[in-house]
Amino acid sequence: MITVAVDCMGGDVGPDVTMPASLAFLEAHPQAQLLLVGQPDALGAWPQLLGNPRCKLVPASEVVTMDDPVEVALRRKKDSSMRVAINQVKDGVAQAAVSAGNTGALMAIARYVLKTMDGIDRPAIATQMPNARGGATTVLDLGANVDCSAEHLLQFAVMGSALVAAATGRQEPSVGLLNVGEEVIKGSEVIKKAGILLRNASTSGDLNFFGNIEGDDVFKGTTDIVVCDGFVGNVALKASEGLASMISGFIREEFSKSIFRKIAAIVAYPVLKSFKNRVDHRRYNGAALLGLRGLVFKSHGSADAFAFEQALNRAYDAAHNKLLDNVRERIAHARPLIAPEPVASELKSISTF
Amino acid sequence: MITVAVDCMGGDVGPDVTMPASLAFLEAHPQAQLLLVGQPDALGAWPQLLGNPRCKLVPASEVVTMDDPVEVALRRKKDSSMRVAINQVKDGVAQAAVSAGNTGALMAIARYVLKTMDGIDRPAIATQMPNARGGATTVLDLGANVDCSAEHLLQFAVMGSALVAAATGRQEPSVGLLNVGEEVIKGSEVIKKAGILLRNASTSGDLNFFGNIEGDDVFKGTTDIVVCDGFVGNVALKASEGLASMISGFIREEFSKSIFRKIAAIVAYPVLKSFKNRVDHRRYNGAALLGLRGLVFKSHGSADAFAFEQALNRAYDAAHNKLLDNVRERIAHARPLIAPEPVASELKSISTF
Repeated sequence: MITVAVDCMGGDVGPDVTMPASLAFLEAHPQAQLLLVGQPDALGAWPQLLGNPRCKLVPASEVVTMDDPVEVALRRKKDSSMRVAINQVKDGVAQAAVSAGNTGALMAIARYVLKTMDGIDRPAIATQMPNARGGATTVLDLGANVDCSAEHLLQFAVMGSALVAAATGRQEPSVGLLNVGEEVIKGSEVIKKAGILLRNASTSGDLNFFGNIEGDDVFKGTTDIVVCDGFVGNVALKASEGLASMISGFIREEFSKSIFRKIAAIVAYPVLKSFKNRVDHRRYNGAALLGLRGLVFKSHGSADAFAFEQALNRAYDAAHNKLLDNVRERIAHARPLIAPEPVASELKSISTF
Repeated sequence: MITVAVDCMGGDVGPDVTMPASLAFLEAHPQAQLLLVGQPDALGAWPQLLGNPRCKLVPASEVVTMDDPVEVALRRKKDSSMRVAINQVKDGVAQAAVSAGNTGALMAIARYVLKTMDGIDRPAIATQMPNARGGATTVLDLGANVDCSAEHLLQFAVMGSALVAAATGRQEPSVGLLNVGEEVIKGSEVIKKAGILLRNASTSGDLNFFGNIEGDDVFKGTTDIVVCDGFVGNVALKASEGLASMISGFIREEFSKSIFRKIAAIVAYPVLKSFKNRVDHRRYNGAALLGLRGLVFKSHGSADAFAFEQALNRAYDAAHNKLLDNVRERIAHARPLIAPEPVASELKSISTF
């Protein structure tokens, strides 16, 4: 039995999304239990869910809003549904927590409550993007870290490998370093150094480094994992969302410009529908917060019930596939590269001073 | 009469693209002249173009390949078509140069031959992306500068404003600073400082600063201009290209999965065609190299004749609209902000040492 704690108050909508999603999730997962965290009054309207023996209401008196500054969420709302959900993971009552709330607050609270793993300086946010191969590319970081060192990028690569390995069973997923060109001489100083660290980690068997990749490779599916700093990842993700939304708007507009075109839309409906399914970003909802001593998943704030259920699925799968152990083992193995012991030559140069 | 120098050898294809594009361009622009730069043997196959009185062949014995390292292009191929085309601008024989060659080489040669303008530390590459408003968003930098300071971002903002003002006639186009959130406290240290500089420049009337924007705003068309460092801009541009190509591939696949779907494609053909026109990236081909003492435009290396003609159009329009004067005047006006004179307190702190 796997228990997932759900922040039922989080997101743009709250219980009207999280509760129906929880119901659908429970029906699809006979081996799952849910801890529904939130204000009892707000959750009382779903008696069919609260009456389920695999569900338990965990009261939390406060709610972190989408606009709450991190400090408010962290220091002033200690009984928020977000924090209480994460507390369930810390206390070992749940194996994972899911929230559609404010990303900055979720990361800050998760980090404060759960702490980072040994060997990890900074947790990262990893998400999936659909690719032209029909699969998904895992990209991290998506915005937790705006300034990254080369060592951070190496840590992200190792954690991303653990995530994909746990989800797919393939033990050596490929890693690409997002850059402005394929050549090793391209990019900023941080990226060039990260390239060296990643190549070393590939040599030592800590990961399967493909090399530098460019922005279009995310959607080509050139590698299983794409590593970048949180600024670049966030911009690329949001630009892609903006472009996809513009394109679907254009398709809608073009098909409704005249009676003839509306008829064409009816004829083409099954095709347009399966196209829409294929690029439906809701299917990829549920980003992993990696590098913490517990599993936390972030749903898009604007998720509907279908999308939020995907985030619950992801959290369940991660707990079921022992993602946490997988990350811990890989980080421990890569530790000498991530935080290298001073070598003889370095000691010598230190002693010169 | 406006004269444009064309690097006829550049790009993935070379003369088979640049020559037909030049012919079409000349027919559409009775006030234009072209200097066709390249190896006479390679260009000889277009007698109808070379016989045009508004065309002149300018021989260049060498070609910068798409793989040539910058050093080779700059130091060893001094008689390349790329360099000779830029020389025409330097010598005042042409008002602009266009090349589809290797971006790194083009920027290096343009910078070496033409030099940067007073007040500009680093030239930038600016391109247009289509937006949901039916217009285009101008984004810079697109890869010339992987590490930028806040002052560089301010320079880009001023140059981008000049570019849009020259192209549209609107004197106060809006500028957005690409960030991971709208709030002023978001982003890296460089971005936060750039925000302060841009707000100051808005106060002093040097530009019209909208504030921070996010990746999706590029395609929403929230601002006329989007400013970012070259690493972020390059990744966002290429990721968008990759996503657009994936989506069009999916549409093609979905419409050819069965006989019924192929019939639907025929019925929907006019709609799909006008949709395709609308998102056709070829229409936006032709990136401006800004901050140099001369106009240089970069075409996509894989441009076809239609796309390359758009780059020629852009170069012509920029020369016609006196883009260079516009950039120079705006940079001169913003100079106190870009390279501030030491103020009293700073002088004092200097004298303390």
